[in-house]
Amino acid sequence: MAYNLLKGKRGIIFGALNDMSIAWKVAEKAVEEGATITLSNTPVAVRMGDVSKLGEKLNAEVIPADATNVEDLEMVFQKSMEILGGKIDFVLHSIGMSPNVRKKRLYDDIDYDLLNKTLDISAISFHKMIQAAKRLDAIADHGSIVALSYIAAQRTMFGYNDMADAKALLESIARSFGYIYGREKSVRINTISQSPTQTTAGSGVKGMSSLMDFANRMSPLGNATADECADYCIVMFSDLTRKVTMQNLFHDGGFSSMGMSLRAMDQYEKGFDQYRNEDGTIQYG
Amino acid sequence: MAYNLLKGKRGIIFGALNDMSIAWKVAEKAVEEGATITLSNTPVAVRMGDVSKLGEKLNAEVIPADATNVEDLEMVFQKSMEILGGKIDFVLHSIGMSPNVRKKRLYDDIDYDLLNKTLDISAISFHKMIQAAKRLDAIADHGSIVALSYIAAQRTMFGYNDMADAKALLESIARSFGYIYGREKSVRINTISQSPTQTTAGSGVKGMSSLMDFANRMSPLGNATADECADYCIVMFSDLTRKVTMQNLFHDGGFSSMGMSLRAMDQYEKGFDQYRNEDGTIQYG
Amino acid sequence: MAYNLLKGKRGIIFGALNDMSIAWKVAEKAVEEGATITLSNTPVAVRMGDVSKLGEKLNAEVIPADATNVEDLEMVFQKSMEILGGKIDFVLHSIGMSPNVRKKRLYDDIDYDLLNKTLDISAISFHKMIQAAKRLDAIADHGSIVALSYIAAQRTMFGYNDMADAKALLESIARSFGYIYGREKSVRINTISQSPTQTTAGSGVKGMSSLMDFANRMSPLGNATADECADYCIVMFSDLTRKVTMQNLFHDGGFSSMGMSLRAMDQYEKGFDQYRNEDGTIQYG
Amino acid sequence: MAYNLLKGKRGIIFGALNDMSIAWKVAEKAVEEGATITLSNTPVAVRMGDVSKLGEKLNAEVIPADATNVEDLEMVFQKSMEILGGKIDFVLHSIGMSPNVRKKRLYDDIDYDLLNKTLDISAISFHKMIQAAKRLDAIADHGSIVALSYIAAQRTMFGYNDMADAKALLESIARSFGYIYGREKSVRINTISQSPTQTTAGSGVKGMSSLMDFANRMSPLGNATADECADYCIVMFSDLTRKVTMQNLFHDGGFSSMGMSLRAMDQYEKGFDQYRNEDGTIQYG
Repeated sequence: MAYNLLKGKRGIIFGALNDMSIAWKVAEKAVEEGATITLSNTPVAVRMGDVSKLGEKLNAEVIPADATNVEDLEMVFQKSMEILGGKIDFVLHSIGMSPNVRKKRLYDDIDYDLLNKTLDISAISFHKMIQAAKRLDAIADHGSIVALSYIAAQRTMFGYNDMADAKALLESIARSFGYIYGREKSVRINTISQSPTQTTAGSGVKGMSSLMDFANRMSPLGNATADECADYCIVMFSDLTRKVTMQNLFHDGGFSSMGMSLRAMDQYEKGFDQYRNEDGTIQYG
Repeated sequence: MAYNLLKGKRGIIFGALNDMSIAWKVAEKAVEEGATITLSNTPVAVRMGDVSKLGEKLNAEVIPADATNVEDLEMVFQKSMEILGGKIDFVLHSIGMSPNVRKKRLYDDIDYDLLNKTLDISAISFHKMIQAAKRLDAIADHGSIVALSYIAAQRTMFGYNDMADAKALLESIARSFGYIYGREKSVRINTISQSPTQTTAGSGVKGMSSLMDFANRMSPLGNATADECADYCIVMFSDLTRKVTMQNLFHDGGFSSMGMSLRAMDQYEKGFDQYRNEDGTIQYG
Repeated sequence: MAYNLLKGKRGIIFGALNDMSIAWKVAEKAVEEGATITLSNTPVAVRMGDVSKLGEKLNAEVIPADATNVEDLEMVFQKSMEILGGKIDFVLHSIGMSPNVRKKRLYDDIDYDLLNKTLDISAISFHKMIQAAKRLDAIADHGSIVALSYIAAQRTMFGYNDMADAKALLESIARSFGYIYGREKSVRINTISQSPTQTTAGSGVKGMSSLMDFANRMSPLGNATADECADYCIVMFSDLTRKVTMQNLFHDGGFSSMGMSLRAMDQYEKGFDQYRNEDGTIQYG
Repeated sequence: MAYNLLKGKRGIIFGALNDMSIAWKVAEKAVEEGATITLSNTPVAVRMGDVSKLGEKLNAEVIPADATNVEDLEMVFQKSMEILGGKIDFVLHSIGMSPNVRKKRLYDDIDYDLLNKTLDISAISFHKMIQAAKRLDAIADHGSIVALSYIAAQRTMFGYNDMADAKALLESIARSFGYIYGREKSVRINTISQSPTQTTAGSGVKGMSSLMDFANRMSPLGNATADECADYCIVMFSDLTRKVTMQNLFHDGGFSSMGMSLRAMDQYEKGFDQYRNEDGTIQYG
């Protein structure tokens, strides 16, 4: 069901790869809600992924670009303004990758060149994107910029490695730039901290499915899906959230405010079944 | 401009007094967005304020009730379901008052009977409201409950007195009950932490206008208005935010993420003008 | 090993019951570190518990008092100043009890008279204590006041019930009063948020031992013990922390900054053992 | 006054430049408290600053090293263990610098090579330091590692520029590595978020003295001094804080928990003096 929340708005969606991507869902919903958009991803991702199909379906131009390259980013904003016929109203940054995770370098044995890449791809690209846009004065007044984050920025998750640090940096950039772009052009910048989501990007993280099960049982509303995350992004792009900025918004079924749920504890206790006394009490070791 | 975001939904708005009230704006927008609603406030407020006029304008029944009285609250939910023809989809709690502030009792000289009243009116009423609703199974699955809060719950503001503690308690109740109502009925419960707003309720707080000026200069987007707050409430009532729960959502133009802005510092420094040296530097004392 | 950190200081310890109590350990260490102290607990607790023995051992007067009664509290400060020969340098508030938990009233079916008692005993008593002390000008300049808290103030733990709200209120009072007592007398007020600890007070909470196991496996340093908590209290009473105020200090082996540890996840996954496929992967349901 | 809190402990202090440096004070107090230490700073800083004098005074070897260079860091730990005769018990990281600030590049016009340097010097050096130490198994069990941070990591301060992002990254590294080093060797890692402090490092930040005045008036206890910060570091190195890890500890006279103080507001309002009406009320513009 559509509401015309983005009627007449122009947007750029960075990071759609295939139909599991959150960015993919955001692109679909943005168009449903009346926006015209362009799509961008790396040249490799454009060749390998399905983003071109998405572009056809949504009548949206796909602009290959390296989000760590300032010239590429300027070109994306330049082209998008030409194609869409005006300044950009909203931008989604859904980009993240850790070569240290990919190469199975543990956090106490990371490679620093790879760490720089993790930070550049997953966090600094957000700064570059916004700085490029601001230089070109490419964002319309009261525009909205959103990046996707994860609670590892606040709380350590085993196996998440240097992506946790990248997300902390990303959220800081949202605040720092949110101040400047806000005071000058009333542009708002926020991050949405999403439940663990089964995407191609999420699939490299160790123990992902157990973690998703735990998060799901901890969250009173269960894990938020990619579709639901897209709904929340639309809301943050709409004119109904014009005074929300510099925030990290948890979209996680309540996980971030939970210490322990009964449902997760029930599952946790099952692991003690072999250590139960005859009266049913658990023998803790 | 309306989007039909609440089409077919039923809601109850607690706390509208006059056209400066945030609750008043929420009621208006909720109806604009397609909802049918009832309004509730204390019998005194109904007699003294303009809420009856609002009710006429919006074709919404006004149900006088004391929000600290469980039976009254049950009656409000009962009646609202009858009038609106089904379970309730959204509830706004916009209720707060400190008799200690009114009687100018300082925080280190508060009266404990009055403190109990502050907490009962401003925070425990939220628990009573939700417990009453849950007992009657009055909230529809995926319903949304919102209470209005203020950043004094996290950071001490001189003169805000025991209202700060009441807001901290209110936000805790949102989390505690959000867990239970979430897991059982997928009902979400959040607080919106709004900029200082010129309402009748806000006018008792000491130094309010200077504080609003400071908040405004600190916030890159300026203070959020009551109208904008109403927009954000609508969004939180809509189906687009179904996985957001147990959160305190800052709606404040960025204030909560600011340490110091250039604009606020410029004003702050003006106070030193009489202490300036001839070369323009400030003589700090 | 003692360092003379509290040499010449005078303190009051509220809430020691028996040798499992954190307050008991704090009293012992405070005396070891050179302080002279008085002890206080309710008349019933003094009769039933072992606090009189502790008093004898530490040569510390035991002053029975109801911490929800302002006159009693004034008497405790008055007497303590007489006995110890001067103003008080440090105070520990280790008091908390929920009649709703005791009577097994669930959070969505709480009794509001009992809620008022929970809040009065566990949180408002802290305000009463400080207001009584300030009226008598009983705290020495640069004095230190500490209350014990728990992470349920920020994150919902099933079964912790209205104690979560009481702890949130307690932490807010520490901030609100910390501002006022700080600016006027340089007195600092903080809360220490301690790991779940096997005390008589903690034993009423549902599923306590499983929760402690989970917290222990989540925390890289394991749960903090009562003894270690006492060390941290001493530090907060000493002159080495004079500029720390209005803080909630987590003393929990790292729990509060963890999202998921490998050790806790290993235990969690054991519960799936019966649902494993032949290749060892888990069939999530 | 000394307590022998660090008796027999071995430490390394990174970042002492001159007697205004916090690291300088920490070195002095650590030795007073019974520790033996080594000092490290960049070769340039060692040549230009007074750290050699400090080394002589404290009988502490000065080891020049570039904290962004892994080999240098390994050398510092290796040498320190040799000189001090065993594993290291505590480490202070007091290192930070932004070439973008130095070159007056604004945050929306930063140079990305310089940003990489800011992050490398101010944050990644902390990871390199810990990873180097862990590889050499150079930290004793229950050792303590502290880095100095600033509240700009959470709240944007105009003019603080990319140092805010560096501090956010630094604090994230403390959490991420705190988990790993904690579970394996019971080593704890924390950051201390200190009041703005008049040091050589702090002097480049725009509007520093006004900001310090504001922070001072906002904080009920006033700004924390370098000396007091050193006391807090000692406490965090001592055996009395063994279960505190992965925390960011505010040492700021209460600033972080303040929204607005009466004293700061009084000063703020002075700037309106010329806009006062005859009756004393302020004409806000």
